[in-house]
Amino acid sequence: MLVNTRLVRIEWGDCDPAGIIYYPRYFAFFDASTSALIERALGMNKRDYLKKYDFDGHPLVNTHCRFLLPTRFGDDVVIESTVTQFRRSSFDVRHQLTKDGTVAVEGFETRVWVKGDPARGQMKGVPLPRDLIERLSRG
Amino acid sequence: MLVNTRLVRIEWGDCDPAGIIYYPRYFAFFDASTSALIERALGMNKRDYLKKYDFDGHPLVNTHCRFLLPTRFGDDVVIESTVTQFRRSSFDVRHQLTKDGTVAVEGFETRVWVKGDPARGQMKGVPLPRDLIERLSRG
Amino acid sequence: MLVNTRLVRIEWGDCDPAGIIYYPRYFAFFDASTSALIERALGMNKRDYLKKYDFDGHPLVNTHCRFLLPTRFGDDVVIESTVTQFRRSSFDVRHQLTKDGTVAVEGFETRVWVKGDPARGQMKGVPLPRDLIERLSRG
Amino acid sequence: MLVNTRLVRIEWGDCDPAGIIYYPRYFAFFDASTSALIERALGMNKRDYLKKYDFDGHPLVNTHCRFLLPTRFGDDVVIESTVTQFRRSSFDVRHQLTKDGTVAVEGFETRVWVKGDPARGQMKGVPLPRDLIERLSRG
Repeated sequence: MLVNTRLVRIEWGDCDPAGIIYYPRYFAFFDASTSALIERALGMNKRDYLKKYDFDGHPLVNTHCRFLLPTRFGDDVVIESTVTQFRRSSFDVRHQLTKDGTVAVEGFETRVWVKGDPARGQMKGVPLPRDLIERLSRG
Repeated sequence: MLVNTRLVRIEWGDCDPAGIIYYPRYFAFFDASTSALIERALGMNKRDYLKKYDFDGHPLVNTHCRFLLPTRFGDDVVIESTVTQFRRSSFDVRHQLTKDGTVAVEGFETRVWVKGDPARGQMKGVPLPRDLIERLSRG
Repeated sequence: MLVNTRLVRIEWGDCDPAGIIYYPRYFAFFDASTSALIERALGMNKRDYLKKYDFDGHPLVNTHCRFLLPTRFGDDVVIESTVTQFRRSSFDVRHQLTKDGTVAVEGFETRVWVKGDPARGQMKGVPLPRDLIERLSRG
Repeated sequence: MLVNTRLVRIEWGDCDPAGIIYYPRYFAFFDASTSALIERALGMNKRDYLKKYDFDGHPLVNTHCRFLLPTRFGDDVVIESTVTQFRRSSFDVRHQLTKDGTVAVEGFETRVWVKGDPARGQMKGVPLPRDLIERLSRG
């Protein structure tokens, strides 16, 4: 499967009064990492792939996250993201965040490929594009 | 078990270009909801309970979240939070976020009661205070 | 002029490793406060007033902020917001954030009432609705 | 004067329902940019420079920002940051954010070099280190 790798600096503003990362920030990192993975697979940015594939987003239906080691400001971490499963209109993503080579956080997401206006509660899953699956499946 | 209830307004700035909430915001809501639950149980704010119980926080080791219905700016949602299990130095929290009486999001957390400097990677779990357990267990 | 008052709790997650608020959070508070002021003046929420007045938002063109006293998690602060000037299609807002009766932060904004698609760079200022001005001007 | 340049991708999660950036995010970018400028001048990260110079941060006392053009998700922007003035214990920073070579946002900050516990309201300005001034002044 295609793996996308990003280097992220943990910033002062990502951290809380304990001096470690405020964990909702990980979900912001992971959301951007999923988009970056799809951008890499499709060779275009999110604005363009939303248009080209004529759909309205890939919102989460489920996420699970394990925090193994704290990170703190000044840390440069690596996030590796890959799809682990495809279904008709949904897919699973795994994000592995490492610090100095050790896994600090593992995140798992299930996302749906939707069409319709999410803000009106009228979105529904549509089949994943065949070439998306192919491109995300390449080694 | 003690249940704490908060009313939260989903703001424009909590939402993304699809017009629905940017999901990392839910984790910010839930983090504040866990603190509010403990504040209510102990009858003091977080700043004071960190001091009185002489510990350094209750970071997450695990979280799981299910997104059933989207929320969007202008929505007033209700978050009900309660502890579902106590262990020696960790505990589980369940957050249920409802919109117009329907469950929109369910969040589950496992947190550890720690002492030590999290920023130096020197924090370790310490036993949950007995009166914390008693107060969180009241109906 | 109409003054809208909000009570805001500074949360753990709003604060940085120095234990005081991470200042970008003030701008999130102020953005929500401007919307709340207009919502109160018009008697409807932002989702509805965008529709009823058929426009696309009131983005900032300018902001200025003075930080007089730090705030920290557990603080309950009061934000008072009011319009200080109207022009043809823009208006100025002043936010005063107080802690225990003392001014901690003052924020000033200039916003434009726009129509068009901001994401395409095609938005332009349109005249402020007469009744908006009237309602925001009431004591 | 030393100018630090950062390339920042505007992410989906940085944007609001109008599809353009939610402006508090700019302040998060600028805060990280000021730290990056000082890190580059001193040749060490923030965690280390706080220790080496034995101080407790450089909080804002004042900021001013002009928004000239909107940015939206998928935009890669450039932020150039430089100090424009030094005083005894405070300094001014200017951030210029450009998109495709055109200035989109200009931010101005006044920051104080402080010692003491900000969370207790006991911080006070201390003189800027001489070598900080020298290193930030280099072309």
